Amino acid sequence: MAAVKVHGAPLSTAFQRAVVCLYEKEVDFEVVPVDMRAGAHKQEPFISLNPFGQVPAFEDGDLQLFESRAITKYIAEEYAEKGTQLIPFETKKKAIASVWMEVEAHQFDPVASKLGWEIIFKPMFGMTTDQAAVEENEAKLVKVLDVYENRLSKSKYMGGDCITLADLHHLPNLQCLLGTNVKSQFESRPHVKAWVADITSRPTWAKVLAMLKP
Amino acid sequence: MAAVKVHGAPLSTAFQRAVVCLYEKEVDFEVVPVDMRAGAHKQEPFISLNPFGQVPAFEDGDLQLFESRAITKYIAEEYAEKGTQLIPFETKKKAIASVWMEVEAHQFDPVASKLGWEIIFKPMFGMTTDQAAVEENEAKLVKVLDVYENRLSKSKYMGGDCITLADLHHLPNLQCLLGTNVKSQFESRPHVKAWVADITSRPTWAKVLAMLKP
Repeated sequence: MAAVKVHGAPLSTAFQRAVVCLYEKEVDFEVVPVDMRAGAHKQEPFISLNPFGQVPAFEDGDLQLFESRAITKYIAEEYAEKGTQLIPFETKKKAIASVWMEVEAHQFDPVASKLGWEIIFKPMFGMTTDQAAVEENEAKLVKVLDVYENRLSKSKYMGGDCITLADLHHLPNLQCLLGTNVKSQFESRPHVKAWVADITSRPTWAKVLAMLKP
Repeated sequence: MAAVKVHGAPLSTAFQRAVVCLYEKEVDFEVVPVDMRAGAHKQEPFISLNPFGQVPAFEDGDLQLFESRAITKYIAEEYAEKGTQLIPFETKKKAIASVWMEVEAHQFDPVASKLGWEIIFKPMFGMTTDQAAVEENEAKLVKVLDVYENRLSKSKYMGGDCITLADLHHLPNLQCLLGTNVKSQFESRPHVKAWVADITSRPTWAKVLAMLKP
């Protein structure tokens, strides 16, 4: 039995965020399925792992964590010697990567999550898409991607010259939006388009997507 | 002239978040005022420091950062030897503090910011408070504070036995809400109440609040 366990379900973008990081770091792990359709994430035993009732939860021996971005930071630091280096070692480079991790969390994620919810998940659950919310958030996404285009014209990856958590954290919501009309916003910006092609083609991401297949 | 500069305005909660951290770390810094009422944060030269046009921006010599939580993490690590230790040194304790930093960012901040905007800032700018949004977000805050009450019954501070960034990051939005009817939600939970009294009474926070006085 692996010391590292990730509790969740492959459809969860936050679960995917933790798992792609584990693959990049070449850390063995076990998935503990959480039946979200049955509401298992809102009940014991899961809520003892995360009192907010959201996947993923994470265990490494006796350490228990939740919040996907706290999990990835722990994995990147604890397993620094393994797999891809995902946080720069040097303090100032680390600080720059940290800025773009916060940008993902505060500028990209709220907008991309809302778009994914309205366009993909609401229809999946038999609910009606709020078109006004789609338009409002697509307008916000345009502004974010304009900044990204400029950033990526000067830096190969979001956090610097090499891939970091700042890129990986984008993958799940990015992948969702690539399956919608919003894809054109990524394709129309050459540096963003190249970055999307680069990070979505990583073998570790293919392994995450393979988990989604029935 | 100090090597460390914080660009912003005292009324900004994100500016306050960076500044209280600098005071805790006993790092000398200079404030570069940004006239937000005149929209200076949406124009050059500020948007060269933060392309999203939000305060604060931060400089330490030739290093330029934005996003308040990236700034505080940099300060806590770069000036680890000075002032209050704000990030635990040991990996697993650091990971736990990181979880609660993410909780502040993703569970508390969106709700508290929205409440602050509706109850305090909208009237200040001559706009009308959306009562439905207030009720919706107060209901969300209740759930967050129920988790906090449980957490703080087992741990003196949010991130562990000692104060960390996980506590400090709460201060600006927390202080806003203490000036509204929402205060009762903090006062009615004994462990949350004690934690609020503890962190808001820090001398460093008094120095931040003093910046708000005309």
